[in-house]
Amino acid sequence: MNEFAKTSRNQVRRMPARGAYDRETIYPILDEALICHVAFAVEGQPYVIPTIHARAGDVLYLHGAPASRLLKHIMQGHPLCITCTLLDGLVIARSVFHHSVNYRSAIVFGTGRQVTELQEKEQALALLTEHIARGRWDEARQPNSRELAATEVVAVQIESASAKMRSGGPQDDDEDYDLPIWAGVLPLALLPLIPQQDERQSFGVDLPASIQNYSRGR
Amino acid sequence: MNEFAKTSRNQVRRMPARGAYDRETIYPILDEALICHVAFAVEGQPYVIPTIHARAGDVLYLHGAPASRLLKHIMQGHPLCITCTLLDGLVIARSVFHHSVNYRSAIVFGTGRQVTELQEKEQALALLTEHIARGRWDEARQPNSRELAATEVVAVQIESASAKMRSGGPQDDDEDYDLPIWAGVLPLALLPLIPQQDERQSFGVDLPASIQNYSRGR
Repeated sequence: MNEFAKTSRNQVRRMPARGAYDRETIYPILDEALICHVAFAVEGQPYVIPTIHARAGDVLYLHGAPASRLLKHIMQGHPLCITCTLLDGLVIARSVFHHSVNYRSAIVFGTGRQVTELQEKEQALALLTEHIARGRWDEARQPNSRELAATEVVAVQIESASAKMRSGGPQDDDEDYDLPIWAGVLPLALLPLIPQQDERQSFGVDLPASIQNYSRGR
Repeated sequence: MNEFAKTSRNQVRRMPARGAYDRETIYPILDEALICHVAFAVEGQPYVIPTIHARAGDVLYLHGAPASRLLKHIMQGHPLCITCTLLDGLVIARSVFHHSVNYRSAIVFGTGRQVTELQEKEQALALLTEHIARGRWDEARQPNSRELAATEVVAVQIESASAKMRSGGPQDDDEDYDLPIWAGVLPLALLPLIPQQDERQSFGVDLPASIQNYSRGR
């Protein structure tokens, strides 16, 4: 079964036609998004923090410094909600009311655990590095034991999830189509600009493959 | 006093040098970000939802359908956390360990209320429209009374906030600078692509100013 069960937690209530519950829809959104927003609650007070993630099957890996409050909270097994949002465009309608945004978002519910086993930790760091730039793990100097000890990794088991998306042009009211007002979509994309080489770059090193044709997803 | 007090809620603990508490730093991040992520908690379960926002002074306006679970929860005055994140680039270091992301994020704490007064509601919808595309409120057909009734607007008073940012190139370990590994920054930006005119566009309407030279912030 490749669909998450629809429950009160993950159900898309507003515009249910825009919702999806299958991994084939949800996971490519998680993988394309460079960052996620992790929400947790402490005594009723919610917090939401942006961070890098990487996915392996039904697990999301997060990492940071061992002193990170977010990671400590996650390691304690508290309920989490993690959301990734991709902005695809502005929907420019004739009426203000029908303006919208084209987007793909994925919302994940689960709980975390500390990754203590060295092999899993290294694999997770490789996935996190590859999530930032495909191929970079093999290009860069890999972590030594001191760096591994200075990095905390947590694994969040995805227990429930859903996606919500909008695509396509504006849907105006019938009587508005003759108005002399421009309507359409302004596509948006998170794009790489020209790479800036470090001032202290050693001589004769070419731009690596991971950066040369950088693109995310799709 | 243009700084928010540093409290346990908004304090930047990891890398405190990257933190800021003044409105002059925090508010431009909120204004440049097309969307925010709103976190709330129901009986200990956190949720985080992406949505459009607009700022007026120390208030963030959000809107949606009257049936929205998020807006209903906000109207009840529960504590909220709202985060905006701008991705500025990938920091590509010689070592995996020093890879990072350049970003500007703002985190806001506050509570919301329903906007019931018609003038404030219209003003908020104008701000939300202008947040999407500057100048669009006057270009488009403005909301009629039926549409105003079909739109819920909430105001979130910003009680506390902070920003966290990283910029600049990689900081590698001294002994790694001679390695034959490329290092630098790959700048990223959310950019508009070519506008796509609606198929049902009425004849002889030019691309409006709001879309022609679209850019966010800076």
